[in-house]
Amino acid sequence: MPDEVRREPLGRMICGEALVLFRREDGSIVALQDQCPHRKYALSKGRVEGSEIVCLYHGLKFNGEGRCTFIPGQDRIPDTLKARVYPTVEKFGWVWIWMGDAGSADESRIPDFSLNLAPGWKSVWGYLKIEGDYRIVLDNFLDLTHIGYVHAATIGNAPAAAVPMNVEPGEDYVRFTRFMVDVPPPPTFLKAVAFTGNIDRSQKARFLPPSNFQNDIRAVPTGTNDDARGLRFVVNNSLTPETENSTHYFWAIPRNYRIDDDATGDVIRSENARAFEEDKAVIEIQQKMMEIETPRTPIIPIKADAAALAMRRVLERLERLEAGHAQPQSDTPRRND
Amino acid sequence: MPDEVRREPLGRMICGEALVLFRREDGSIVALQDQCPHRKYALSKGRVEGSEIVCLYHGLKFNGEGRCTFIPGQDRIPDTLKARVYPTVEKFGWVWIWMGDAGSADESRIPDFSLNLAPGWKSVWGYLKIEGDYRIVLDNFLDLTHIGYVHAATIGNAPAAAVPMNVEPGEDYVRFTRFMVDVPPPPTFLKAVAFTGNIDRSQKARFLPPSNFQNDIRAVPTGTNDDARGLRFVVNNSLTPETENSTHYFWAIPRNYRIDDDATGDVIRSENARAFEEDKAVIEIQQKMMEIETPRTPIIPIKADAAALAMRRVLERLERLEAGHAQPQSDTPRRND
Amino acid sequence: MPDEVRREPLGRMICGEALVLFRREDGSIVALQDQCPHRKYALSKGRVEGSEIVCLYHGLKFNGEGRCTFIPGQDRIPDTLKARVYPTVEKFGWVWIWMGDAGSADESRIPDFSLNLAPGWKSVWGYLKIEGDYRIVLDNFLDLTHIGYVHAATIGNAPAAAVPMNVEPGEDYVRFTRFMVDVPPPPTFLKAVAFTGNIDRSQKARFLPPSNFQNDIRAVPTGTNDDARGLRFVVNNSLTPETENSTHYFWAIPRNYRIDDDATGDVIRSENARAFEEDKAVIEIQQKMMEIETPRTPIIPIKADAAALAMRRVLERLERLEAGHAQPQSDTPRRND
Repeated sequence: MPDEVRREPLGRMICGEALVLFRREDGSIVALQDQCPHRKYALSKGRVEGSEIVCLYHGLKFNGEGRCTFIPGQDRIPDTLKARVYPTVEKFGWVWIWMGDAGSADESRIPDFSLNLAPGWKSVWGYLKIEGDYRIVLDNFLDLTHIGYVHAATIGNAPAAAVPMNVEPGEDYVRFTRFMVDVPPPPTFLKAVAFTGNIDRSQKARFLPPSNFQNDIRAVPTGTNDDARGLRFVVNNSLTPETENSTHYFWAIPRNYRIDDDATGDVIRSENARAFEEDKAVIEIQQKMMEIETPRTPIIPIKADAAALAMRRVLERLERLEAGHAQPQSDTPRRND
Repeated sequence: MPDEVRREPLGRMICGEALVLFRREDGSIVALQDQCPHRKYALSKGRVEGSEIVCLYHGLKFNGEGRCTFIPGQDRIPDTLKARVYPTVEKFGWVWIWMGDAGSADESRIPDFSLNLAPGWKSVWGYLKIEGDYRIVLDNFLDLTHIGYVHAATIGNAPAAAVPMNVEPGEDYVRFTRFMVDVPPPPTFLKAVAFTGNIDRSQKARFLPPSNFQNDIRAVPTGTNDDARGLRFVVNNSLTPETENSTHYFWAIPRNYRIDDDATGDVIRSENARAFEEDKAVIEIQQKMMEIETPRTPIIPIKADAAALAMRRVLERLERLEAGHAQPQSDTPRRND
Repeated sequence: MPDEVRREPLGRMICGEALVLFRREDGSIVALQDQCPHRKYALSKGRVEGSEIVCLYHGLKFNGEGRCTFIPGQDRIPDTLKARVYPTVEKFGWVWIWMGDAGSADESRIPDFSLNLAPGWKSVWGYLKIEGDYRIVLDNFLDLTHIGYVHAATIGNAPAAAVPMNVEPGEDYVRFTRFMVDVPPPPTFLKAVAFTGNIDRSQKARFLPPSNFQNDIRAVPTGTNDDARGLRFVVNNSLTPETENSTHYFWAIPRNYRIDDDATGDVIRSENARAFEEDKAVIEIQQKMMEIETPRTPIIPIKADAAALAMRRVLERLERLEAGHAQPQSDTPRRND
C-alpha cells in the first residue's frame, strides 16, 4: 500500500524476487532489486540520501534508475554496475509494480479499481499475508458458496451457500452473479445496518487477470429494492505472489453510502478484515494439505467451481501466450500495493 | 488410542498420509483421507453431524464410507467425489488401521496383544511421538543391552548390559530371551517391589512384523522362583510410522499381580513412561546423527545386534514379498492406536 | 578455543562432519567422529572415563585412537569397529584439526599466528558463529573499505572507506596495505587512546589459505610516527567452515603496548567483538540475499575487491590442486579452535 512506501527503504519479496522500495525527494516511488550488484547485500538495509540509496556494506550509491553513482575510492564506475529497476506507478490507491521486462510495462493494462478513490465513495483498506499459492486464494474468491461455512460468524450464513452462481466466462475475464432473495441477513450485515427482517442480497463479481477480483455487494430489505435502507459496498481484491506458496493480499472496500460516517467505515473494515482472516486460516491449511502427496486422489470439481475453473482457463491461456510471446496483450501486470 | 478417537474429528498423519478419524453415532470408528476430494481442505477441521462429516470450506458432507452425500446448491453428486476410506478395527484396546488396499485388509493378521484386556490382568497405557524412523525404534526394542546405559536411572543397571540374548529368528518373527541371575534390582523394580537383595530377572521378547514388540518381564528374589514375592509385567509396544522419520509409539503394560492396586499401576506407568522418554531422547539424537552423511563409516554390528539383524531380515523379506505381490501373507497390517 | 575442549565431551560440526572433542587424562586432545560406529549415537552425549569415551546407548568404549576397547557381553572386538580419528594439535592458543586423510596431516602448514602467545604481547580472544559461507566472511576481511560503513560506530569512519588498498597477490597468499594519513580517529580508537587530533593509520593485512587472515593495525598522532602515543594491535582471524553456509569464527588480538593494563585489553576485546557482530549481521543478510536466485544479475567487482579476488584465485588454485592430487603442498589444513 502507498503508505508502506516511505523515504526509509522497504524490503519486499515479490514473485520470488527481492525488491527494495523507497520514495525520492519528490515523492515518486523507486523499486530496485534488493541485492546490491556489487556483493548482493540488501539495499533495504541501506540509507536513502536525497533520491538515491546507499548500500551500507561498502558505501556504493544507486539512483532511482538503478545506476551506481558513487563508489568510495574509485573514480570510474563500470556501466555494468546496475541494480535492476522495476517500473512502478501509483494508481487507485495502490502501488503497481511491473515484474516483466521494463520496456513492455503498460500502465493501461492495470485493471480498473477507480472506485477506490472515486468522488462520492469512501474506502477502507487492508493488507494480509497468506501462506498459500495465489491461485488457491483466487479459488476462494471465485467460489462464494464458501461464505456459508467459512464466514458463518461474519459475512455469510447457511442460506448463502446453496444459491447458484450465474457464471459468464470470457477470454480475459470471468464474471458471475448471485441473487439471494428473502434470506436472513448475516451477522456482519446486521452490524452495518439494523435490518429488521429478511433481505434481498446480490453479489456481482469479476475476475481480472492475473490476480484481481472485484465483488459488488448489495443488500436491501426484501422486496423493497430501496438502497436508502440497505447497504452497498464493493470489495476490491488484488493479489501479489510473494513466492510460489505465499501471497500478498491487498484489499480496499469503497462504499457510496454514509461516506462521512466513520463508524460505518470501521464496521466494514473490521468485519471484512475478520472474514479475510477466516479465509486465510482455511487457505493456509488447504495449502499444507495440497503439499501432502496422495496421487490416488485428484481434485474433483463441483458445480460451484464454474467461475474458478473459468478463471484457471484464463490464466492458462495467458501463460501459453506469455510462453509463446505470440500476442502482446498477454503481458499482464503484476502488482504490489 | 481408542480414547483419542471421539465424535470430534482427529487429524493424524500415518505413513505420510493425512487421515481424519471420528466415531459414528453408534461408536464405530471411521478413518478417511483428511483431504476433502473437492479442494483438499482438511476434513479434520470439519464438523461431525450424525455419522457424517461436513467439510467447513464449502459444506460438502461425507459418510463413513467416504461417499459425498451433500453438496450445497447441487442435486447430482458425482460418483468420483469420494474420500479414501481406511479400514479400521478396535482390538486389544488399540485402533488398527489398514493402510493398504481396503480389499486386502485381514483382521486375523493383527498380532496377538490379548493380554492388554485379558481377565485377571490390568494394563497401564501410554503414547509417545518419536522423531525417528520406526526401524531405529525397533532396533532399540530388540537390543536390550541398552537398558544398562540408557535406563540406568529407571529399569536398567550395569549388570543388565552384559547378559547375552538367546535369539531365535523366524521367518515372520524374532524371539529372544535373557536371563539375569543374582543381579541387583534396578531402580524401577525397587520402587515396584521392596526387594531386599539380589534378584533373578528374565526378559522373553518377541518381534512381530511389521512393527510390534512384546517383552515379558519377570523378577523374583534370587533363587526363590517365587512369583508372589516378585513382579511380572508384559510390555506391549506397537509402532505406527508417521513419516519416514517419525513414529507414533503406543504402549500398554498388562500385569497379573496386584491388579486392584492402583498405586502399583501408577508406579509401572510412570517409571516406564520415564524410561521410554529416555529412549526417545537417544533415538532422536541417533536419527539426526544418521542424517549426517559420512560415507566412510558404515554401521558395524556387534553380537547384541543378533535380534535386531534378524528383525531387519524379516522386514526385508516382507518388503520383497510386497513388491512382488508373490504371497498374500506378506500383507502386513499397520496400525494407529 | 582450547578452553572449550575439556574432559567432558564437546560436540561440534566441522566441514559438514560431526566431531566430538575431549581431553585425555594427560590433557591431550582427542577428536573423533561423533557417531558411534555401532549405531551412530552421538559420542558427545557419552561419558569420558580415563582417556576413553563411553557411548551411552549400548556402553561401547573407544580410546583416543578411535579403537573400540569394550563391548558389554562380548569378548572379541571386531577390528572394523573404529571411530574415525581427526589429528589435532594445540598451537598459538588454538586447536587445529586436520579434516583430510590422517596420514597427510602436516603441522608445519599451520599458518604463523605466533604473536597470539608471544613474549611481550598480550592477547584478547573471541569466538563467533556466523550463518554464512566462510568465503563471504573472507571477502569481508579482504575488502576493508567496508569499515567506513559497517563499522561507523566502532572501528571505522567515512574517511576509512575511500583510501585505496595496495594489493600484492601471491600464489599462496594475498597481502595488502592501506595508509590513511591525517584522518580523524574512529570511535574505538578514541576509547583505546585519548587522541586529541587526527591520526596516521595503517593496515597491513595478509590472507593465508585456506581461511586465515591477519591484520596488523597501527595508529599514531598524525605526523608524529610516535608509537608511544599511539596504538598497535594485530587482528588474527581463523575461520572453520561448519557447513557450506555457516562458519566458526575464531579471533585473537595480540597487542604489544600496555600489556599489563587489563582495562586496555577489555576495551580492545569489547570494541572488536562489537565490530565483528556488525560484520556478522551484514554477512548473514548477504548470505540470504545470495540464496535468492536472480540469474540476470551477476556480482560486479569494484576496485576495492582486488584483494578478495586474489584470495579467490588462491582458493581456486588450491581446489584444483586438491582435485588433481598433483602437488602435495595443496593439502591445506582446516582448523577448529
